Amino acid sequence: MSEEVPSEAQDWKSRCVAKKQQQWDSIPKEWIISPPKEGDLNVMDIPRSCGILSPKELEITDMDDIVHILRNLADGTWTSVQVTTAFYKRAIIAHQLTNCLTEIFVERALQRAKEVDDYRAKTGNVMGPLHGLPVSLKDQFSMKGIETIMGYVSWIGNYAEHDAVLVQILYELGAVPFVRTNVPQTLMWGETYNHVFGRTSNPHNTSLTAGGSTGGEGALVAMRGSPLGVGTDIGGSVRIPSTFCGIYTLRPSYERLPYSGALNALEGQESISSVLGPMTNSIEAVKLFTKSIIDAKPWLKDPLVIKKPWSEDEYNLVDHGGRGGQLCFAIMWDNEVVRPFPPMKRAMDMTKAALEAAGHKVIVWKAHRHLEIYKNAETIFVADGGEDYRRDCDKSGEPLVISMRPDHYDDSFPFVDPYVKTLVGPLRSHTAYELWQLHKEKRILRKSYLDHWEATVDETGTGRPVDAIISPATAYPAPPHGLNTDSFYTTIVNAMDYATCCIPVTTVDPKLDQPFEPHEFYNHEDEALFNMYRPELFKDAPVGLQIIGRPQEEEAVISMTEIVDDALIKYRSSRTS
Amino acid sequence: MSEEVPSEAQDWKSRCVAKKQQQWDSIPKEWIISPPKEGDLNVMDIPRSCGILSPKELEITDMDDIVHILRNLADGTWTSVQVTTAFYKRAIIAHQLTNCLTEIFVERALQRAKEVDDYRAKTGNVMGPLHGLPVSLKDQFSMKGIETIMGYVSWIGNYAEHDAVLVQILYELGAVPFVRTNVPQTLMWGETYNHVFGRTSNPHNTSLTAGGSTGGEGALVAMRGSPLGVGTDIGGSVRIPSTFCGIYTLRPSYERLPYSGALNALEGQESISSVLGPMTNSIEAVKLFTKSIIDAKPWLKDPLVIKKPWSEDEYNLVDHGGRGGQLCFAIMWDNEVVRPFPPMKRAMDMTKAALEAAGHKVIVWKAHRHLEIYKNAETIFVADGGEDYRRDCDKSGEPLVISMRPDHYDDSFPFVDPYVKTLVGPLRSHTAYELWQLHKEKRILRKSYLDHWEATVDETGTGRPVDAIISPATAYPAPPHGLNTDSFYTTIVNAMDYATCCIPVTTVDPKLDQPFEPHEFYNHEDEALFNMYRPELFKDAPVGLQIIGRPQEEEAVISMTEIVDDALIKYRSSRTS
Repeated sequence: MSEEVPSEAQDWKSRCVAKKQQQWDSIPKEWIISPPKEGDLNVMDIPRSCGILSPKELEITDMDDIVHILRNLADGTWTSVQVTTAFYKRAIIAHQLTNCLTEIFVERALQRAKEVDDYRAKTGNVMGPLHGLPVSLKDQFSMKGIETIMGYVSWIGNYAEHDAVLVQILYELGAVPFVRTNVPQTLMWGETYNHVFGRTSNPHNTSLTAGGSTGGEGALVAMRGSPLGVGTDIGGSVRIPSTFCGIYTLRPSYERLPYSGALNALEGQESISSVLGPMTNSIEAVKLFTKSIIDAKPWLKDPLVIKKPWSEDEYNLVDHGGRGGQLCFAIMWDNEVVRPFPPMKRAMDMTKAALEAAGHKVIVWKAHRHLEIYKNAETIFVADGGEDYRRDCDKSGEPLVISMRPDHYDDSFPFVDPYVKTLVGPLRSHTAYELWQLHKEKRILRKSYLDHWEATVDETGTGRPVDAIISPATAYPAPPHGLNTDSFYTTIVNAMDYATCCIPVTTVDPKLDQPFEPHEFYNHEDEALFNMYRPELFKDAPVGLQIIGRPQEEEAVISMTEIVDDALIKYRSSRTS
Repeated sequence: MSEEVPSEAQDWKSRCVAKKQQQWDSIPKEWIISPPKEGDLNVMDIPRSCGILSPKELEITDMDDIVHILRNLADGTWTSVQVTTAFYKRAIIAHQLTNCLTEIFVERALQRAKEVDDYRAKTGNVMGPLHGLPVSLKDQFSMKGIETIMGYVSWIGNYAEHDAVLVQILYELGAVPFVRTNVPQTLMWGETYNHVFGRTSNPHNTSLTAGGSTGGEGALVAMRGSPLGVGTDIGGSVRIPSTFCGIYTLRPSYERLPYSGALNALEGQESISSVLGPMTNSIEAVKLFTKSIIDAKPWLKDPLVIKKPWSEDEYNLVDHGGRGGQLCFAIMWDNEVVRPFPPMKRAMDMTKAALEAAGHKVIVWKAHRHLEIYKNAETIFVADGGEDYRRDCDKSGEPLVISMRPDHYDDSFPFVDPYVKTLVGPLRSHTAYELWQLHKEKRILRKSYLDHWEATVDETGTGRPVDAIISPATAYPAPPHGLNTDSFYTTIVNAMDYATCCIPVTTVDPKLDQPFEPHEFYNHEDEALFNMYRPELFKDAPVGLQIIGRPQEEEAVISMTEIVDDALIKYRSSRTS
């Protein structure tokens, strides 16, 4: 054997280099921009200023509500080729600024767009409710003939033989899947970094994380590089990047939307199931996506999807006093594990004022066994002692990522030891019997939380329990890369299976969002986070909130989120006028 | 220490004796009957002939359709005390003949009945849709203040502190829970025997098993000792005793009906979940129970219940061409694992002829990976290497039951080694990772079976895939005690999560149901079963069938089962007139 043969370590690195090169080669050269100036951290305006998009393409891509885009596609004002080209250009710009994409396939997407245009030209009809709309997909949703790498070196070259069920349905609805987006290795991080594609940054401030695991979508959709993305969520993975990047999302209940045929980590872990949800720039788009997918009867293609048709009654809040009536929200000011940062408190204050101004009631949500729930869920996630991850890493020799911190960081950030490690203890392989005991404990916790929620009927004055909970998705806005290590405010939703939307509320304002006075801390992470907060670090970071409803209540949660969003729009305009 | 101290083995036996004595003492002495004559195996008529029930009590208890009973309770024709007394007497008679009961609490039940009567007297209204109706419960559904023993010696003295959610809802609906019924140790048997309460026999022929694990309900309801029982099903446990005993049932999808607060074996095993279902003497009663429980919004009490309200649209077969239209059923004549016995074939022939006479189409259901599905499900059930069972046995020292064969049996039955043992292999504890791989395999099998079902659209001629599958629940009618060891025709429904009803079709007729000619066998169990079939052994045994629909399609399956049942009634009357 020659001495030139690369070691295994060199080999996985060279495979990454080759894949990155192939990705770069797939970008049309006329869409390449100059890098932003050193120190220009907010790159949100570059798509408008860089000169790649025509005024019409800017008009198309700046449109936040996809209902308008779809109307223009349906009536022939725009073709899908025009719209897809516009978003593709913008996606490639976003990619150059945030590293948000994985698979790029311009020709194939434009061919599909043309097919949709031809269909309309020939039949006079739209192909479906998403006729001609470009849709971006997290790097799990397999498309026939395209690699699904999902952040693992060993998956390079993993060309799909079939479309995921979601992709099949998107085709039926007339959509144009056009890019795939970046994820962290293992998917089990609230940030986005892997050895193949690297790190995704937040377009509002590239020194901050875009969140994860659907971080690529977060950055892309925030930059209007896609009108509609699809991510997945097992512990916060659509909600964290959505709130970090200032966009809208829905984390639906287990098995309401079709996951079949998508690749995943921890496959077979089906006690706290990963779910898919839309990531987009309006709550109307969240509704349109969710309703369109459910109306397509996904249970005929995915055996795990619950046969529950979209319910206009539930959207009209039949179980919440009827749309137009007074709702009672409860705000989770503090989950008693980690106290939310000043900008999160301000966002909750704003939301409370906005809802009260709109005639709704707002009470306090009392935390209930959150630490137990978090510990239970996190222990289930690693019940295999990490074997699932290890196997996928071992195939290529790449190391398991154990921190999201960039190598060049100094140690000025005090936050090093996530509390989850203390809670879960050393990693070990559980037996099936032990896993069943964790499941049993989870059921007891779910029952306890349900009874806790039902008991609020005594406090609301509406005759009903609290209609929805309003909560931060994280205790902080998007932190610097490597510092988002826990998910105390999102994982409870997965463990309890609550249908939950996120909306953007405000952005960090260093003047308004001064640090709190020192106070008693719940645990060492609460203290470390407190010490980490320096307003200027979080400049321009979006601040979003979760609107949390009950299981299988997607219609009602979307409806109530529209109500919150409307109230905030009115509130903000009343303050600025 | 005195030499008189019982050994551990004696101790668990003496605990059983004491519990049985307590049970016997709880029976009103005036309800005690003489045992049937030696050799009188069919005890179905003894409640009518023994003289314990008055003519009116016979009229009440002989009424198969609970809708009529409920009407008489609602309009004051009968009181709940009358109705409960009548069924209690008959239940106690049934118990003396088949050993079907566990907990007996006459006074408490009559007090509840009086409470319901008083409510009506005071308000003029019924308490709910089950006003005044006695309901029997499998020995899992905890009732505050009563023991839940569930076939384990170590659970003697396990007095419940809370009502199971189902029991809470039954109270809200006006029902009168009045007895609990026998189960096998571990619940994981298709027969009913445990060390505490002993063995339950089939009232049509007491040399045969009543089935299991809800065997107590099967015998009790068949003898009209209860108008409505509730059982549970993880591998066939409501369907096997229902078809063995000639009654109606529904195995609903996972988490459609509320299981919370009921005790169970293998708690935390939530990949193939146990579900609860009604066992009763008409399909109308199945509908009434299911609709009433769902209308009570069980998701507000049990966090796992899917929020899917009862759908009249689905009951009206909106997804099956509309009620009144032509349906296409497919008959599973043979699952290619074990060939159904001659009386099962005759029941399927009758059903085919009846449905065709009613204008429906009947095609052949092609078996699809049944052996793989069975192996996967059975391996999941024992993934803990039996630790769950062992722990509950070890607490008292009682041995784990490893055969349901009575000790006095000779070896004339050739069937000794269930095929499941060959399939699953030696019992061993799996790791969580290994369990996840089994779950993953199950998902692949579910997708494969769904696609197989959808593909039947090419064969039906209705423009839809097959509307429902008609299948035996077991390859044979109720066999002699100890010989029902596998569940090839029922477990597939649990693994695929299909909503499924069972109906009685006919009874074994030794003249008509002569053995088949010898043929090639699929495996050693298929051969052993073939050799076991001697028509006279199965005298008077009921023969039932499953009507299998899709997940969360309870409304449609009940509706289609009504159609099959009606067709059979008309067919039978046309043949006898």
